Amino acid sequence: MTTFHDENSGAYGPREPAKGEREFLRRLGAELPPLSGAAPFGDDLAPLEPRPDGLLWTTDMLMDGVDFDSAVHSWRQVGYKAMAVNLSDCAASATVPVAALCAVALCDDLSMDDALELARGVRECGEQYDCPLTGGDTNSWKYPTVIAITVAAKIDGEWKPVTRQGAAAGDRVYVSGPVGGSIIGRHMRPKPRIDLARTVNRKLNPHAIIDISDGLALDLWRVCELSGCGAIVDAADLEGVVHADARLRAEQTGASPSEHALYDGEDFELIIVVPDSTPDEDCRRLGLLPVGVITDDRRLTLRGEDGALSPLEIRGWEHFRG
Amino acid sequence: MTTFHDENSGAYGPREPAKGEREFLRRLGAELPPLSGAAPFGDDLAPLEPRPDGLLWTTDMLMDGVDFDSAVHSWRQVGYKAMAVNLSDCAASATVPVAALCAVALCDDLSMDDALELARGVRECGEQYDCPLTGGDTNSWKYPTVIAITVAAKIDGEWKPVTRQGAAAGDRVYVSGPVGGSIIGRHMRPKPRIDLARTVNRKLNPHAIIDISDGLALDLWRVCELSGCGAIVDAADLEGVVHADARLRAEQTGASPSEHALYDGEDFELIIVVPDSTPDEDCRRLGLLPVGVITDDRRLTLRGEDGALSPLEIRGWEHFRG
Repeated sequence: MTTFHDENSGAYGPREPAKGEREFLRRLGAELPPLSGAAPFGDDLAPLEPRPDGLLWTTDMLMDGVDFDSAVHSWRQVGYKAMAVNLSDCAASATVPVAALCAVALCDDLSMDDALELARGVRECGEQYDCPLTGGDTNSWKYPTVIAITVAAKIDGEWKPVTRQGAAAGDRVYVSGPVGGSIIGRHMRPKPRIDLARTVNRKLNPHAIIDISDGLALDLWRVCELSGCGAIVDAADLEGVVHADARLRAEQTGASPSEHALYDGEDFELIIVVPDSTPDEDCRRLGLLPVGVITDDRRLTLRGEDGALSPLEIRGWEHFRG
Repeated sequence: MTTFHDENSGAYGPREPAKGEREFLRRLGAELPPLSGAAPFGDDLAPLEPRPDGLLWTTDMLMDGVDFDSAVHSWRQVGYKAMAVNLSDCAASATVPVAALCAVALCDDLSMDDALELARGVRECGEQYDCPLTGGDTNSWKYPTVIAITVAAKIDGEWKPVTRQGAAAGDRVYVSGPVGGSIIGRHMRPKPRIDLARTVNRKLNPHAIIDISDGLALDLWRVCELSGCGAIVDAADLEGVVHADARLRAEQTGASPSEHALYDGEDFELIIVVPDSTPDEDCRRLGLLPVGVITDDRRLTLRGEDGALSPLEIRGWEHFRG
């Protein structure tokens, strides 16, 4: 999700689309009246109710062969992931999940046990994060299985939801953990950073948060786009956030580990932007890892270990390229 | 939707499934803890919040080739229908829609204009029923288009939501309008009976309501199953609820018009069960048409014009038969 925005897929995409989700969302957004409530168009969660303390919600749809592979992954894993990617959107806004709904188009090939395992995976993940599955819609057809989950979330007491759009020049950028190479296996069992996000919201005065679904570079760029700014990623910092899986993956692909850290999707770690006034040691105490700073020019830049600046390519997974 | 229950498709199905949605829901329901809130497992809407006056919600997924045919129907029609079938679930519970989310897996063949038309159809229907589209999730793939909409609804002031499970022997059964033959065209532009349902809830003390998505017989049977009762459909009454489209359709299929009235899906009229104490003229004044009575034996029966009773076949659309 959400407000007409995809972020549940982690494959690698080409550069800029001719057709494309971002253009689709831009055109759709231009037609839509502005929404009242806590979250702007294009954010992780949308306001469900038109009042500042009302519920928010998000939806994410997963498709067999795109977001999972039923030839490889168990149906329980698939159900787990489908719920987890939605809960990760709650983490990205520092809200508290309340309940979920699940709609499925089951491939006719599935057995009754497969279907029950899928539902059990959804529930298993929901129970871990106090998000009960309250209902759904069961369909079947001859094409690959599709699963769409909707999660509603409440505001965390007096702590307002965090959006993608509050970053400002001079802010510092952190991630909640190492990234890259999730395709090796982690992408099927995301750990929604709900508790961490709530702690960050209480203690660090975050200006913006997003979860990394489509890649560090692309998701950081989304924060920049919505906030009207840019960012510099520090090459030395980047080295520090490369996941061990990114190194393994680099051996398979020939790309560098840091490229995998920048452009792989489905880590579901958080990108957290804090004001310069938030002490760095407070961030590190929560396990956050620095990656760079926000700037006032609207581009992504890499600062090499020698201090030289070079443009950082903006790419990642994007649907509906056609 | 909802609570693990399909009702967005109107094709004709065989008798009883070997595998099947009803068995799937029965087994899933047996595993799930009972839900607190206003609606029981298997109802049109599920409680979103665990308090009696909290929001409810529903989800329905539509698939190309099953619930619509993109070779025949415009994308705007598809979007309209996808929203309308969800709003019909709100009508079935006599609740008031609040907002919607929409997730799509767009076939790669769609153009940007197709995708925008789909979204416009969703919004057009939502605006007609005061249900703004607040966000969504955009995906694409090489298979037919799938669209899943979630709608949240609020309780209508002091008027409690109506469920499927309150019917009791002696109650009378009405429908909100003539049925059958929707496949000729009406099925793409359902008219969610939200206003009528709210009026019924205020004035007629309804014991149960369901919207006719899978057919008069099957949806009436669902009310009976959840209420622990049966029903007699009066053949003379049945004649009075045959839609003109059912007669047209009967000319194409060779089945009788009343068979089409009983077994065709996607009318999205309401089946309304009222206690015997509710005056018949009050029901008729609201445009309701009588179809029969609730009994205490758990079966569906047809009473012929000569008074003879015969079993009424229970069939209609059911997903996941395999």
